[in-house]
Amino acid sequence: MSTRVKDLTITGVHLTPVLVADPPLLNTQGVHQPYTPRLIVQIETAGGVTGVGETYGDTKYLDLARPLAAALPGTSVSDLNGLALRAGQVAVAEERVEDGVDVGGLRGTQTAGKLRLSVLSGFEVACLDALGQTLGLPVHALLGGQVRERVEYSAYLFYRWADHPARACRPGAAPEPAGEPDEWQAALDPAGIVAQARRFVDEYGFGSFKLKGGVFPPEEEIAAVRALADAFPGRPLRLDPNGAWSVETSLHVANELRDVLEYLEDPASGTRAMARIAAHAGVPLATNMCVTTLEEIPEAFTSGAVQVVLSDHHYWGGLRATRELAAICRTFGVALSMHSNTHLGISLAAMTHVAATVPDLDHACDSHYPWQTEDVLTERLVFRDGCVDVSDAPGLGVQLDHDRLAALHERWLADDGTLRDRDDAAAMRVADPEWVTPSVPRW
Amino acid sequence: MSTRVKDLTITGVHLTPVLVADPPLLNTQGVHQPYTPRLIVQIETAGGVTGVGETYGDTKYLDLARPLAAALPGTSVSDLNGLALRAGQVAVAEERVEDGVDVGGLRGTQTAGKLRLSVLSGFEVACLDALGQTLGLPVHALLGGQVRERVEYSAYLFYRWADHPARACRPGAAPEPAGEPDEWQAALDPAGIVAQARRFVDEYGFGSFKLKGGVFPPEEEIAAVRALADAFPGRPLRLDPNGAWSVETSLHVANELRDVLEYLEDPASGTRAMARIAAHAGVPLATNMCVTTLEEIPEAFTSGAVQVVLSDHHYWGGLRATRELAAICRTFGVALSMHSNTHLGISLAAMTHVAATVPDLDHACDSHYPWQTEDVLTERLVFRDGCVDVSDAPGLGVQLDHDRLAALHERWLADDGTLRDRDDAAAMRVADPEWVTPSVPRW
Repeated sequence: MSTRVKDLTITGVHLTPVLVADPPLLNTQGVHQPYTPRLIVQIETAGGVTGVGETYGDTKYLDLARPLAAALPGTSVSDLNGLALRAGQVAVAEERVEDGVDVGGLRGTQTAGKLRLSVLSGFEVACLDALGQTLGLPVHALLGGQVRERVEYSAYLFYRWADHPARACRPGAAPEPAGEPDEWQAALDPAGIVAQARRFVDEYGFGSFKLKGGVFPPEEEIAAVRALADAFPGRPLRLDPNGAWSVETSLHVANELRDVLEYLEDPASGTRAMARIAAHAGVPLATNMCVTTLEEIPEAFTSGAVQVVLSDHHYWGGLRATRELAAICRTFGVALSMHSNTHLGISLAAMTHVAATVPDLDHACDSHYPWQTEDVLTERLVFRDGCVDVSDAPGLGVQLDHDRLAALHERWLADDGTLRDRDDAAAMRVADPEWVTPSVPRW
Repeated sequence: MSTRVKDLTITGVHLTPVLVADPPLLNTQGVHQPYTPRLIVQIETAGGVTGVGETYGDTKYLDLARPLAAALPGTSVSDLNGLALRAGQVAVAEERVEDGVDVGGLRGTQTAGKLRLSVLSGFEVACLDALGQTLGLPVHALLGGQVRERVEYSAYLFYRWADHPARACRPGAAPEPAGEPDEWQAALDPAGIVAQARRFVDEYGFGSFKLKGGVFPPEEEIAAVRALADAFPGRPLRLDPNGAWSVETSLHVANELRDVLEYLEDPASGTRAMARIAAHAGVPLATNMCVTTLEEIPEAFTSGAVQVVLSDHHYWGGLRATRELAAICRTFGVALSMHSNTHLGISLAAMTHVAATVPDLDHACDSHYPWQTEDVLTERLVFRDGCVDVSDAPGLGVQLDHDRLAALHERWLADDGTLRDRDDAAAMRVADPEWVTPSVPRW
């Protein structure tokens, strides 16, 4: 065995749950909480490098991450196939896995397998970062090399409030603080969405737009997309109600917006409903809800339910699994792009590396990153002309800001448990105590 | 950019076509020629290492390999995605690609795309070897790490003659030499096949057996498999007539051998025939003929035509593509094993590295290697208990024997063109001037 192999041996794994500020972005289940949990993974090697990764930070993920972290010292950061096998063996407390739709991630039905893959993704990225740093190669080279020098992202538009609603407390006392303010205005109608889009264009140069829908009745959201089409003629547009509509409503929206939509994303819940819509929509259907694991692919691909899979390395188990998904999509003539949930710069760097290596990435990728005012990096990643440049530095090409990480971890430690598990419906109940997660189809 | 990246730059590519001795193994199209063409690829880097790869050596492959080799200097051995794109851009003279079944490879319909992928595979393996040598990592680590320490192969049994038939020449002159003799006897009946199998077990420890069929009428081949089952009770058995049978004959054979077959391989030609057989065979069907490219997968997997794909990194475009194929098979619940055509030690090493990284490799792999008395390595790979140990040396872990390579290249240079393109039917006509490639179904 060469010296190199010894250098790659994992000597320690550090898990740091954090709470990061999240604006009051609206979706069909409720509103983002003032802070959202993320998990930062640091993997140290005998060679003296530390790789970083990032994934979901809710308690159910931490419960899986801890035993996996404990199993890794002595293994190699190059042993990624072994890492996946170990992640698959980690036990999950069954009571953590509700048999239903995942309330935080809007990622379809929640299963123990999906949780494991999401945990795996953070560890895999940290291993790739450490491996790349050790070998002097960027992560994209570990994935076979970049086929483009920058990766295009789309503007991710949200209906939103200006501020989080203040949390009620004892009668007579001042309301509890409601998160970090940001500099964005409320956007609750077509004019507000267009103004938001214009700021995204001015600040980041995005060339395409996705509107998170399922918040207002379909006619209002149709009007918002129409307003975008008028304000930005010819730009690719997308609408994503997270499965909130019936088949009939979905077909009505498709009919109204067919001429301006690049694709319609998860109009209805479930593969069968998507297949019925796809047969008549006249516009491609995209998903990050009905195809989120290998098991869900055969039915969806053979029934023609989806034309674009929005991959997410946090869902599929990492960057290498994302490349395998790309191969499966290629085989079945299904297009590929990328989904995004709230994430920090580590995951944006990871997304950019893998996206740089997939030849047939057919659409601009989604990213929440512009909404995140906080990060754990010494230097934020930058969008220029809507794109992120692919780093050629060894590993991911990012540097942890340890003070920042410690501060966000302190916030997690100080939390009474209320915000350690993302719950958009609970956040909505702060404003509307009667709110319950809408059943689907909502319209 | 780090120093490492400069070290990885390709400075030269050397292509060495060789003719290697091949015994008179029989198949449904004819018999192996005395020598078979292979192409040895050497890729040199600025860092001073040379990676080696191996693929088909027929003229139609050389015609594609030469312009690809010319396009590589200045690129990096880590740029494997770029290599695949470049291989896809290499032009092929259309007259080289006959629209029909590939006579040499028995790999289904021949297309320009298939030829390109086979050429790519030799270059990809050479790049991985060079990359691994440079980084101090074995090829399996570049593929995510081994999940097993040795890879199991099966005994590849053939009906065969003891010697190649002498080639006719001018009346009165001595017949031309007919290749290198080996130490094996003829095997043309059940007793001969069992004797061959016993020698394979004694010398290499193989625990399972595949018989190349389609040579004699099905009843004779059924009798040979029955004889194997009697001689080696409980050992996995396979029969592969290379698509020579009708649906009815295939079902008859399946019915006769259901209790002893691990799988039946390519009983009939074409996905539709395979699907009809699979519906009633009661034994899994394997293929390396109707699923040899991504394009062939959707119909085969959705019609239930195949239960085992026999991958071959020479077919699919290399080791990384083989891993992608494994992911596709996993997604559709199709098992994976490995096919083999005549190959040398470089390809056996490559097969072993990738097989070591695929968790769900479900059957012992095929290899022709025991039939090859010649190699271009300083040290032959060894089967122990039917397995090849996975090398932990940097790269593939093989060393070229440059004298041996030169001698086999001299043979290629000296050939008048007769043997530079594998043609099993032409070889058969030396013994039987009336022989024509049988049409399918043959029985």
